[in-house]
Parts: sequence; structure tokens; C-alpha cells
Amino acid sequence: MKPPLRDADFREKMRARLLAVAKRLIVDEGLAAVQARRVASEAGCSVGTVYNVYGDIDGLVLAANATTLHDLGSALETVRKHVQGQDVEERLMALAVTYLDFAISSQRRWRAVFEHRLPDGYPTPESYIADRRALLALIEAELAQVLPDADQRIDAARALFSATHGNVLLALDGKLGDIAPDQCERQIRFLVHHVVSGLSR
Amino acid sequence: MKPPLRDADFREKMRARLLAVAKRLIVDEGLAAVQARRVASEAGCSVGTVYNVYGDIDGLVLAANATTLHDLGSALETVRKHVQGQDVEERLMALAVTYLDFAISSQRRWRAVFEHRLPDGYPTPESYIADRRALLALIEAELAQVLPDADQRIDAARALFSATHGNVLLALDGKLGDIAPDQCERQIRFLVHHVVSGLSR
Repeated sequence: MKPPLRDADFREKMRARLLAVAKRLIVDEGLAAVQARRVASEAGCSVGTVYNVYGDIDGLVLAANATTLHDLGSALETVRKHVQGQDVEERLMALAVTYLDFAISSQRRWRAVFEHRLPDGYPTPESYIADRRALLALIEAELAQVLPDADQRIDAARALFSATHGNVLLALDGKLGDIAPDQCERQIRFLVHHVVSGLSR
Repeated sequence: MKPPLRDADFREKMRARLLAVAKRLIVDEGLAAVQARRVASEAGCSVGTVYNVYGDIDGLVLAANATTLHDLGSALETVRKHVQGQDVEERLMALAVTYLDFAISSQRRWRAVFEHRLPDGYPTPESYIADRRALLALIEAELAQVLPDADQRIDAARALFSATHGNVLLALDGKLGDIAPDQCERQIRFLVHHVVSGLSR
């Protein structure tokens, strides 16, 4: 049974309002601040409404993190246009440096994507899986020229994304000592350069 | 002024006991369980004793994490002996696979090393820095044959360690979808293979 229009309107308004609150809490304080009571209080609704609209707090966190994936995707798409026509190494490095910059400038939002752990058995929503695929597809597209096999490209894109993420994460966390962004970039270039020149042979 | 022997003995005993409690809490429940009250209660001492012996709870966590670095180092040293004489790619892969296995089999201890964030301005102890250096030096040693410049080796070892860590972390967290250990290993080999063949040219 479809709810009357007013209910659907209310639901959409609450959905947007709760999402805005969750995003702000992540930006200001980090993922740990996104708790149902806190969100409800800041959105001026009951905890029941949070659950009613998003199913549970993980549903709300996933929605907030999806906006981060979209913003990251937009940043990567923008830089791709700027480096069209350059060689594969420069194009992959442009994506990697954009990722590093995004992690620095949107650090709490970026961390929230990777810190969030779904409860056991909680299925990742199809839309979230599609958002993640879209990001990896950007890397795969740049590899097409040097890696014609589509399955190998999927593996390679995951390997390169994970490698870049690991270098960015450990640099920002200072886990291997003080690593400045330009040194982090140098480390990533070391990997990208050899992978591309290896694939191009 | 040196404390009387009995005090020094007590201190050493408490140091070992608190460390054992912290390690057990990390193994059983993860880093978040290592709280001063909890540790004191399980060690049968006051919170003041925890602070007196380790300075603060971060001092105790660092001591527990140092034992993880040592155990990881021992595992890496053992495998290095087994692959002596093999080519650089196989030697680096042996280290990477040992790292992956260690992360899986000692997952909470491994996570605690990377999840622990020191308060702003808290200096990393010299001994911890040395432990970390020793792990990276294992990778640098394997690279000596293909990368004679010592500074470049430091960068390359950090790049390869971070890349391996990123691949292991995102696979275990399921952040790029379901990635089984053998697929994670394949991704790491993709990177190591190209880096080594690039450097060997």
C-alpha cells in the first residue's frame, strides 16, 4: 500500500535532513559521532524515525559514505578530462594524486568510508556496490591501452587502487614515520611507473 | 635515586603482567578493550600502577604492539631463510605472503598496530621506531640486488610495504568486494612482478 503523498513528502524530507546531519557529524567529528540518538536529536526527530527512514544506523552511514564516493568520483572524472591524451603513467598518476588530495582535504569523510564495518551478515546495498565499481572502472579504463584482457584489468585496478590507498593511509597515519604528501606521491609513482612500463613492453 | 631491589622487582613483575593482560585483551577483543581501568582490574592492581609503570595507556599499547612487530619480524626472518637463493620476485613475494598470513592469523594484534593513534604531540618511542625500521630493512635487503642506491631503496621499501598493506587491509575488510586470500596474493604479485622486472632491466 502506497503511503499518502504527505507521508512520502515527510519521509523524503527526513531522509535528506538525516543525511545532512550524518555528513556534518562525520566532517566535524568523524564516523564514531554518527549514533542514532545523536542524529535524531540534531535532526529534531525521534530515534524511531531514523530507523524508519534508513532501516538502521548502518543504512544512514552507508548513505553518507555513498555521497563521499560520489564526490571522490567527480574529482577523479574532472582530472581525467584534464589529462586526456597524456601517457598512461601520467593519467594513472593524476588519478592517484587526486585520491591523495581528496584523502587530505576530506580526511574524516574519506576515513569514514574505510572505517565503517557492517555487522556480520549485513548485505552491502547494490547501489553502494555499483558506486564502488564505478570508481574502479575509472582505473580500468586507463589501463585498457596496456592491458587488453578485461579480467586482468579488474585485478590490476584493484591492485593499484589498494596500493595507492595503502601508501596514502600509512603516510597520513604516520605509521612508517613522517611521510610528507610529496614523498607519498613519489612512492606511488615508483609503483605506477614500473607497472606501466612492465605492461607496455 | 635507584629504588630498592624489592621495588624494582615489583615494577618488573607488574610490567610483564600488565603487558600480558594488554596482549590478551587485544587478541580476545581488539585494541578498544585496552583501557586503564579494565587492565588494572584484570591485573589485580590500581589504575595508578598502570600509569606508574607505563606512563599512560598509550605506553602500554605501544609495548603490546611492539611485541606484534617482533613476532611479525620473526615470521619474516624465518621465511627469508627458506627462500635464500631464489630470485628477487620470489623472495619479495615470500615476505608479502607471510605478511598476509600474519594479518589473517593474528588479525586483532595486526589491526591494533595500525588502529592505534597516538595523541597529538606524543613522541613515538625510539625503540618502536627502531622496530619499525627493522621490518622495512628486511624489504630493503631483498631489493639491494636490483636497486643499488640506498635512499631509493628506502622509498621503494616503503612503497612496497604500503602497497602490500593496502591490498591486505582492503581484502580483509571486504572494502572492494569479496577478495579471497589467493586473489589478494595475485594482486600483490602483479605489483611485485612489475616492480622487480622494471628494476632489473
